[in-house]
Amino acid sequence: MSTLYLGADKSNISKYVLFSGDPWRVEVLKQYLDDPQKVAFKREFNTYTGTYKGVQITVTSTGIGAPSAAIAMEEMYESGMEVAVRMGTVMALQDDMLGKFVIPIAAMRREGTSSSYVDMTYPAVADIDLVNCMNQTVTDMGAEYRNGLNCTMDGFYSKMHDSRFSLEWGRDMTETFEELKKLKVTGIDMESSCMLTVGRLMGVRTCVVTMTTVLENLKETLQGQARTDAEDLLCRVALEGIYRFSCS
Amino acid sequence: MSTLYLGADKSNISKYVLFSGDPWRVEVLKQYLDDPQKVAFKREFNTYTGTYKGVQITVTSTGIGAPSAAIAMEEMYESGMEVAVRMGTVMALQDDMLGKFVIPIAAMRREGTSSSYVDMTYPAVADIDLVNCMNQTVTDMGAEYRNGLNCTMDGFYSKMHDSRFSLEWGRDMTETFEELKKLKVTGIDMESSCMLTVGRLMGVRTCVVTMTTVLENLKETLQGQARTDAEDLLCRVALEGIYRFSCS
Amino acid sequence: MSTLYLGADKSNISKYVLFSGDPWRVEVLKQYLDDPQKVAFKREFNTYTGTYKGVQITVTSTGIGAPSAAIAMEEMYESGMEVAVRMGTVMALQDDMLGKFVIPIAAMRREGTSSSYVDMTYPAVADIDLVNCMNQTVTDMGAEYRNGLNCTMDGFYSKMHDSRFSLEWGRDMTETFEELKKLKVTGIDMESSCMLTVGRLMGVRTCVVTMTTVLENLKETLQGQARTDAEDLLCRVALEGIYRFSCS
Amino acid sequence: MSTLYLGADKSNISKYVLFSGDPWRVEVLKQYLDDPQKVAFKREFNTYTGTYKGVQITVTSTGIGAPSAAIAMEEMYESGMEVAVRMGTVMALQDDMLGKFVIPIAAMRREGTSSSYVDMTYPAVADIDLVNCMNQTVTDMGAEYRNGLNCTMDGFYSKMHDSRFSLEWGRDMTETFEELKKLKVTGIDMESSCMLTVGRLMGVRTCVVTMTTVLENLKETLQGQARTDAEDLLCRVALEGIYRFSCS
Amino acid sequence: MSTLYLGADKSNISKYVLFSGDPWRVEVLKQYLDDPQKVAFKREFNTYTGTYKGVQITVTSTGIGAPSAAIAMEEMYESGMEVAVRMGTVMALQDDMLGKFVIPIAAMRREGTSSSYVDMTYPAVADIDLVNCMNQTVTDMGAEYRNGLNCTMDGFYSKMHDSRFSLEWGRDMTETFEELKKLKVTGIDMESSCMLTVGRLMGVRTCVVTMTTVLENLKETLQGQARTDAEDLLCRVALEGIYRFSCS
Amino acid sequence: MSTLYLGADKSNISKYVLFSGDPWRVEVLKQYLDDPQKVAFKREFNTYTGTYKGVQITVTSTGIGAPSAAIAMEEMYESGMEVAVRMGTVMALQDDMLGKFVIPIAAMRREGTSSSYVDMTYPAVADIDLVNCMNQTVTDMGAEYRNGLNCTMDGFYSKMHDSRFSLEWGRDMTETFEELKKLKVTGIDMESSCMLTVGRLMGVRTCVVTMTTVLENLKETLQGQARTDAEDLLCRVALEGIYRFSCS
Repeated sequence: MSTLYLGADKSNISKYVLFSGDPWRVEVLKQYLDDPQKVAFKREFNTYTGTYKGVQITVTSTGIGAPSAAIAMEEMYESGMEVAVRMGTVMALQDDMLGKFVIPIAAMRREGTSSSYVDMTYPAVADIDLVNCMNQTVTDMGAEYRNGLNCTMDGFYSKMHDSRFSLEWGRDMTETFEELKKLKVTGIDMESSCMLTVGRLMGVRTCVVTMTTVLENLKETLQGQARTDAEDLLCRVALEGIYRFSCS
Repeated sequence: MSTLYLGADKSNISKYVLFSGDPWRVEVLKQYLDDPQKVAFKREFNTYTGTYKGVQITVTSTGIGAPSAAIAMEEMYESGMEVAVRMGTVMALQDDMLGKFVIPIAAMRREGTSSSYVDMTYPAVADIDLVNCMNQTVTDMGAEYRNGLNCTMDGFYSKMHDSRFSLEWGRDMTETFEELKKLKVTGIDMESSCMLTVGRLMGVRTCVVTMTTVLENLKETLQGQARTDAEDLLCRVALEGIYRFSCS
Repeated sequence: MSTLYLGADKSNISKYVLFSGDPWRVEVLKQYLDDPQKVAFKREFNTYTGTYKGVQITVTSTGIGAPSAAIAMEEMYESGMEVAVRMGTVMALQDDMLGKFVIPIAAMRREGTSSSYVDMTYPAVADIDLVNCMNQTVTDMGAEYRNGLNCTMDGFYSKMHDSRFSLEWGRDMTETFEELKKLKVTGIDMESSCMLTVGRLMGVRTCVVTMTTVLENLKETLQGQARTDAEDLLCRVALEGIYRFSCS
Repeated sequence: MSTLYLGADKSNISKYVLFSGDPWRVEVLKQYLDDPQKVAFKREFNTYTGTYKGVQITVTSTGIGAPSAAIAMEEMYESGMEVAVRMGTVMALQDDMLGKFVIPIAAMRREGTSSSYVDMTYPAVADIDLVNCMNQTVTDMGAEYRNGLNCTMDGFYSKMHDSRFSLEWGRDMTETFEELKKLKVTGIDMESSCMLTVGRLMGVRTCVVTMTTVLENLKETLQGQARTDAEDLLCRVALEGIYRFSCS
Repeated sequence: MSTLYLGADKSNISKYVLFSGDPWRVEVLKQYLDDPQKVAFKREFNTYTGTYKGVQITVTSTGIGAPSAAIAMEEMYESGMEVAVRMGTVMALQDDMLGKFVIPIAAMRREGTSSSYVDMTYPAVADIDLVNCMNQTVTDMGAEYRNGLNCTMDGFYSKMHDSRFSLEWGRDMTETFEELKKLKVTGIDMESSCMLTVGRLMGVRTCVVTMTTVLENLKETLQGQARTDAEDLLCRVALEGIYRFSCS
Repeated sequence: MSTLYLGADKSNISKYVLFSGDPWRVEVLKQYLDDPQKVAFKREFNTYTGTYKGVQITVTSTGIGAPSAAIAMEEMYESGMEVAVRMGTVMALQDDMLGKFVIPIAAMRREGTSSSYVDMTYPAVADIDLVNCMNQTVTDMGAEYRNGLNCTMDGFYSKMHDSRFSLEWGRDMTETFEELKKLKVTGIDMESSCMLTVGRLMGVRTCVVTMTTVLENLKETLQGQARTDAEDLLCRVALEGIYRFSCS
């Protein structure tokens, strides 16, 4: 029987799963696979399974936010997932990170979904072997990485980015950024801490591989070919990293 | 300039916005509009603007979960939204509700996103005039409704539905349902309390119109033609209600 | 057997109960009833039962604060109450509200008593049918109303009003008022959120009808005949509203 | 100018104030004073000032619950209070306490009002000199006392006593009593922890003197002449204790 | 069998136990005892049992912080302790306290250990009879005391004292001191609230006797002979107080 | 100027610091160093600086609990520390771990001290490079390790181990162990999460290296020569790991 939201089942899902946030980027990602088979595209969940260097890999999406990311993790686990890699672009807090990888070792749990699984004393921490494998892959492919901390939050326009409403209310987003820099946080997102927490509780080896394409509050962004190249590199690193991990 | 995620701007968004959770259902919804113009389909956000009985209405989607629903609310507000109606199917806690409308007057805030806007003492309560208008519309179209409470939660498989992981962990979902029934909650979802809270803070008149298509923990569901008819009725009630509200 | 604090029992209490905060105002209220029979005046609870246009109505008092209001709700429920209306004068946050009705659709739960019943995610929301009935009654009697939000708090001199101690400590009450206005709160009181919460849990249809007689931090008040007239109107609206509700 | 609720001012209030919960018991209390002058009886606040053995003492009431007790403390402080004694009957948790005094050295802060003044890490603790003085007075008047802990709570029928609603909901009050006995709590009330906390913050020397007239969940009570005598003794101890304290 | 950390057992521990924070000060303390027998010096716990005026007294240490103080309390209770006195030097918040005793009647619970025993509504309050006995002893020995409140905290360099890190982070310790002075706190330490809470729960009569040797944030300290004399007086008061209490 | 508690200063402290919990084990540890110079032994802090394979290393102690561990971290940072390694024996939750290393990648923050630095959403996570270096060292020295999670708690006898008081109260320690095993926790201690959190905030590279010498609730322990050998191995691994890290 296929799962409720993603339409997945054990027959068509690999134990290696690569998650994108954006369902449409999965259409790009699947092109890196040999013989990608469509599983389903329901709601914000778009799923294909194919092979990379002979290893079966599933690529799928989480949508935005921890609640849908938790659903994706749960249904992939239902379908046999053992290794989970979230990939994506990230808003970084250090200016020298544009075009570089952030592979966080852990994340601040400023979202509400992971606490429906376990209390707040629990760390959202990546699998160290998987992180080491991704680090090595980045280096071998000629790029740079940092293993810092992400901060995962539920409120994009309440905490991370100005909006009409935030300006009318006089919210100052720079407070968030000043605080997080002081806490040595390197990147901000909306899913990582939940996926790391749930993955660890499940016994699924989980990590996050991100490419810095934008600096805090959108003050600088990769654009044009630089962005295309960066996203291509991100896809290749993620898949190559999974391939290597499958061999270890 | 168009908004970051939904690609909307003031020129192509109505002050009346109807939200679906599922971006693909927007493709159905737009068929009820005259001259629907595509705004964009990015990530889980699929948007059209057209007219219904001469009133301009935007239909769009929130994706699953309060974080993406808050983004949709923010970007629609950026684009001039004044009235917000979330429509959707709902898991109901009373057996006699199958095929009937739940138009909650308020919702329990068991999600983490709304608290990035305001502390937990604040009620997630619908706009009473908009609710009254929707009630009347349901009645006039020959259907039944109840104005109860929804409970909005972040964790679908941790609180609302069994999964492989929930079973391995021995979580008992019936605890959630027993508690909520005692609290006189009529329906469960993942977005309402956040949309009601943020809408009220913005001064956007907001309500939720839902059709009961499934009973708690999936023990009974509308299927086949009954479901098709129910979803059709839901679309017509939501649009007709907005039309009437625009005339008042 | 009569109840512990209010001295009430099923034989002398109506299913329609009108609550004043001030026990002495019950002496005024009872004059609007035909054949008012004294139930008891114990502690801050003063109770009469009579009829209004032939409908039996009980008028009683809660005293100040949510703890005694909850006791009054509980003992009236013990005695058969099905509909509860709190009436009172209110400190309003908008200057244009003096002499007008605030019939809140919901209230912020900044008091400690309701959380001894249910966690903070639960909304303190009025019964929509009862609110609609009161709205119509106000309009029909030639007055104006607003359905906003109240904020209910435990600390009068710590949060709402200057005192010798607040001044010695340097507490700034304007912070409370600035925050609440930003949250679109219309009125402040000390009982509503508890009564709405407990009423909903009990299945007692509950609402609050208030007349604005004072503006924030006492900066303007209704006085003399204007106040007498306003309080008279408040009594008549509350009783007439209950009468109409009993007929619906 | 007289205070808002109690109608007190510096000209008619002593620096020694004795608080009853029940405003009607103040009518009894005043009979122990020489030349009692009525200050006001507004809402649940009934106030007289007279002399006892030549010392000026004010007797007043708090009503039920911490919110109104805090108002009484604030307005008496506004009027010059320096010493505050709450007297009352108490529900005790040990069977051997019937007819004996409980003069708590401190109280559990299970009410919401004191936290509008100071965070929960702060102890609600009585003034030791005042407690010592009361202890000695009890002994000298031939009675027995215990200096234990009170537990102050906001919810009478949600935590302390069965009601129709508590029974319908299946709440078990014995859980409260079992827990509190384990915590070595001797008595339960609804005002003490707030008065002790606020008093200490103000620099007002504060204590609580209570007579045990009822055992947990009403399983045994003093009645008839025994109760009359006990309440008489309570009044005399409280006044005599204040007199002695004024001499020290 | 001897206890896990302190190496104590019922045969070598008195029911009267005097705790120092610093294990090395126990070496001084034991010199005030007749025939002190070493129990053990393991980790930060240094223990001797001897007699003072014929009463058997155990002197031991807690180390710094509530976690190790709770262990010391637990293992002494395991070994038969009935009366616990913590003695130490204290950082005081009033300038006129240097060289004087602070014998707190209660303490603020700003540490994490006591909440592993009981929720935060519970007061950390000393045994009144033991405090009275210590007060009298101080007076009889020609010194002065105050019975105020201590504030117990876990973070010495995050809340109480500047450090390289606090300065780099821009933490301002004066905020702590300003807040605590406003709350009428007299002294700051790292163990008292936990020992008072755990002691009360155990039924062990507990108090804290401290000598002020340093003012807030180290701005003034007793030094040289003045300090030696003050510490000598502290030892003699603590032992004499226990002796007297044993006779009562 | 030397630091307040540990008596350290920049002249006598290395940038590599190895922490033991027990001050007396430092006497053993120093024997592995060449030319160990005593810094000070004050309270529970015993410090030596020497060299290992030519690299200057400081060995010191934290005492029991996070409050004193934070003091040790702060004063070592004051004195120039850049790398911090906590070593110790650990109570493990898996039976197959006796005699093996646990090098936790992160820790649950069930202690109160780290939250005086940063809110609970922050992960207590080790430095990945330092962990990798220690992992390799363990393997190279012929032993086994696991990189799991520790759980750090403040209450030893309230959460981790039976006592007279826990038995009288009916606390069941197996609840803690059952919960933590479900959360995939490998070891329990009283300092790690605080040291990892504070170290990360300081920018000090921090990890924890522990040897399993005892199983949950003391049900099995390493004893005699096996324990001596295990502790010897622990010392050698910790020092060798630091040496290697200094070369990288």
